[in-house]
Amino acid sequence: MEVKIVQNVMAANDLLAQELRVVFDSKNTFVINLLSSPGAGKTSLLEETIKRLKGDCHIAVIEGDIAGDHDARRIAALEIPVVQINTGGTCHLDARMVMSSLAELDLSGVDVLFIENVGNLVCPASFKLGENLRVVILSTPEGNDKVKKYPLAFRESQAAVINKTDLLPHVDFDLDQTRRDIRDINTQSEIFALSCKTGEGLDSWMNYLKGKVQGSAR
Amino acid sequence: MEVKIVQNVMAANDLLAQELRVVFDSKNTFVINLLSSPGAGKTSLLEETIKRLKGDCHIAVIEGDIAGDHDARRIAALEIPVVQINTGGTCHLDARMVMSSLAELDLSGVDVLFIENVGNLVCPASFKLGENLRVVILSTPEGNDKVKKYPLAFRESQAAVINKTDLLPHVDFDLDQTRRDIRDINTQSEIFALSCKTGEGLDSWMNYLKGKVQGSAR
Repeated sequence: MEVKIVQNVMAANDLLAQELRVVFDSKNTFVINLLSSPGAGKTSLLEETIKRLKGDCHIAVIEGDIAGDHDARRIAALEIPVVQINTGGTCHLDARMVMSSLAELDLSGVDVLFIENVGNLVCPASFKLGENLRVVILSTPEGNDKVKKYPLAFRESQAAVINKTDLLPHVDFDLDQTRRDIRDINTQSEIFALSCKTGEGLDSWMNYLKGKVQGSAR
Repeated sequence: MEVKIVQNVMAANDLLAQELRVVFDSKNTFVINLLSSPGAGKTSLLEETIKRLKGDCHIAVIEGDIAGDHDARRIAALEIPVVQINTGGTCHLDARMVMSSLAELDLSGVDVLFIENVGNLVCPASFKLGENLRVVILSTPEGNDKVKKYPLAFRESQAAVINKTDLLPHVDFDLDQTRRDIRDINTQSEIFALSCKTGEGLDSWMNYLKGKVQGSAR
């Protein structure tokens, strides 16, 4: 009975995610859903990506948080349109929340929409938001075992970013092992190791992302 | 309607948590529920705590993970009885899972039971497990804003551990600000800053914990 309720919730979300995708396609907006644990660096990656992308195209951002608008203010400082969704306790964004937020965000002329999910490596992986690309971010201080312990986020993402490579000398983290663990779960996953702090590795990530955005443009 | 279902789930969990507490009390077992994001150091804190506590009392551990038994093997290496709960996708432990796991864990003579929750700073905070003490762990690389963004875990915990102080020279983290943010949310919270890697600060944590365990002993 409990399972059935959960299945119904997921099916309803999937349907609404399909509707969102139709809306995004009609606006020619390429949508990227960013997932990670709290503190892995979603907002930092977003800031660095926006700085490198905003000369080429029009960007907007949806920020998902349980409470507060800390991240939205960081994005607004880059002069990018941003809408904050406060989930009020819910541990993930769902398609309904994103659909509602569009009332406050005009997508006309927006080429790329980033959706920064609630900081949680578990639940957001189950909820489609109509995105074209899902990216999971893992940071080196979180440790080596995270891919095996939280496989769904890596299985359901087309790209994985390993952030905070600047901390590699100070933490126990095996980059090669983590790459192998990701590939074991998702043979198709693109993998980027980078540091938002030093800029190391950001070029490869940006080339990939620009290719995806351009490839989708009509 | 959706809210009502959620309320019923929580009420059912609270009732079962009360039953768990009766079981734990009848065995004179002091129970500690450990919460954090993935990779903040729950298992490392548990290892260091067990090494310093196992001469004084009998310890057992329940490990909660979505998948795998990586952490349970780390605990078993310390020759401590450990039961692994695999939630199979669920993002938190609930009282029913803990109750079921007791069939495989004899609490007779166990003075202290640690329950390591699924790595998630959001959902586990809503589910009581019959524990005497709830401890939330935050690590310095996660950044300064986490208390304000994930307030429930800090509000509902009697103690907060700020782990990975060894990384303070390499990350942007304001220890004093974080202490203030925790106190703003929970004036009664005990706060410990420590490093499981170097051992710095572990003495204060152990003194606190031993005081709690001894204070509860009949």
